Amino acid sequence: MSITIALPKGALLKGTIARLQAIGIDFGEFLETSNRLLRLKDRSERYEGLLVRAQDVPVYVAYGQAQVGVVGFDILKEKQLPVAQVADLGFGYCRLSVAVKGDSPYRGVQDLPAHCRVASKFTTCARSYFEERELPVELIPLYGSVELAPLTGMAEAIVDLVSTGRTLKDNGLIEIEKIFDSTARLIAHPLSYRLGRVGLHELLGQIQTAAVPA
Amino acid sequence: MSITIALPKGALLKGTIARLQAIGIDFGEFLETSNRLLRLKDRSERYEGLLVRAQDVPVYVAYGQAQVGVVGFDILKEKQLPVAQVADLGFGYCRLSVAVKGDSPYRGVQDLPAHCRVASKFTTCARSYFEERELPVELIPLYGSVELAPLTGMAEAIVDLVSTGRTLKDNGLIEIEKIFDSTARLIAHPLSYRLGRVGLHELLGQIQTAAVPA
Repeated sequence: MSITIALPKGALLKGTIARLQAIGIDFGEFLETSNRLLRLKDRSERYEGLLVRAQDVPVYVAYGQAQVGVVGFDILKEKQLPVAQVADLGFGYCRLSVAVKGDSPYRGVQDLPAHCRVASKFTTCARSYFEERELPVELIPLYGSVELAPLTGMAEAIVDLVSTGRTLKDNGLIEIEKIFDSTARLIAHPLSYRLGRVGLHELLGQIQTAAVPA
Repeated sequence: MSITIALPKGALLKGTIARLQAIGIDFGEFLETSNRLLRLKDRSERYEGLLVRAQDVPVYVAYGQAQVGVVGFDILKEKQLPVAQVADLGFGYCRLSVAVKGDSPYRGVQDLPAHCRVASKFTTCARSYFEERELPVELIPLYGSVELAPLTGMAEAIVDLVSTGRTLKDNGLIEIEKIFDSTARLIAHPLSYRLGRVGLHELLGQIQTAAVPA
């Protein structure tokens, strides 16, 4: 019985593949620009890789179609799905932050006007952050280029991922509050994990301790 | 006072730019692979283009940050935002359909087992489709590669956009029911439209009747 591993498209893919290659599981083909495959067996045929959108990794793992997955903590917090969080893999650092226009008067979330508009791709995280602080805001869900929202005047603030800070800077935005830090996490299907599916605990242990060239 | 037009990234971008170029509004720069700009004035400086994710076009138009937008009917149905639907622009045809594995016994939605799983990026549309038919299903929201869901056994069916049908065919899936047809739509900010903002009705009329080289 093979084990299926869900790999996230996007920023964490290279790090995930390197981590797996370090323990002899090679899904490098997913990185080739000509690749159109979404499923791939490794050479040993003991492991199958599923290449899915980062947001879909916890879905495949929660439903048990993949027993193992790698995904950012940001997405785990946002999606709130029943998966076992096994380990912090340390790579893929970014943070979810509140940002505003540099020429605005706001230097902290307390400065934001009541019922102001906040645009975000992370509405679940943003909502709980502002609710905990009893700051009433109107959330505007967006799918991309969230930095455009304050520039056009649609929103006073955004809640978005920051890694180098370059996108914010290029758009004249400044970070006023960090909500949380995020890194790549190793997750597992809860039932397979608890019942100790054959080879699963060994695999999870190996992925955690794999020595990856920096 | 310039008019802002929200243009959708992705499949409808080329057609949208061609339509605008036909009436002398040139946002061709958005198509250049080196382009990183998300806002652009046309040569006359009377129009500003906003390049946003297709799902975000109705958001910018509903909030009045863009007075005009072009977006697929599929997204209008899914997002349910208050925008004025001005015209069907005719290009960008696709359809939202229910599909299953070709080797499954299902040849119509009535054949699907009760409470089966249906994966989709269009959960609002899918939910109302199945509810109207009183077919109880469990919807699984996905962000991409929906065709993978039946292949891994996560879902019995999917609700997804079909244009040429090639993705379905490549994955051994067949379409069993069409939910609706979709094409590019011209939309406007309701208040600007009703109050007849200067130049807006003329622009909308020109976009509708523009002769576009096939």
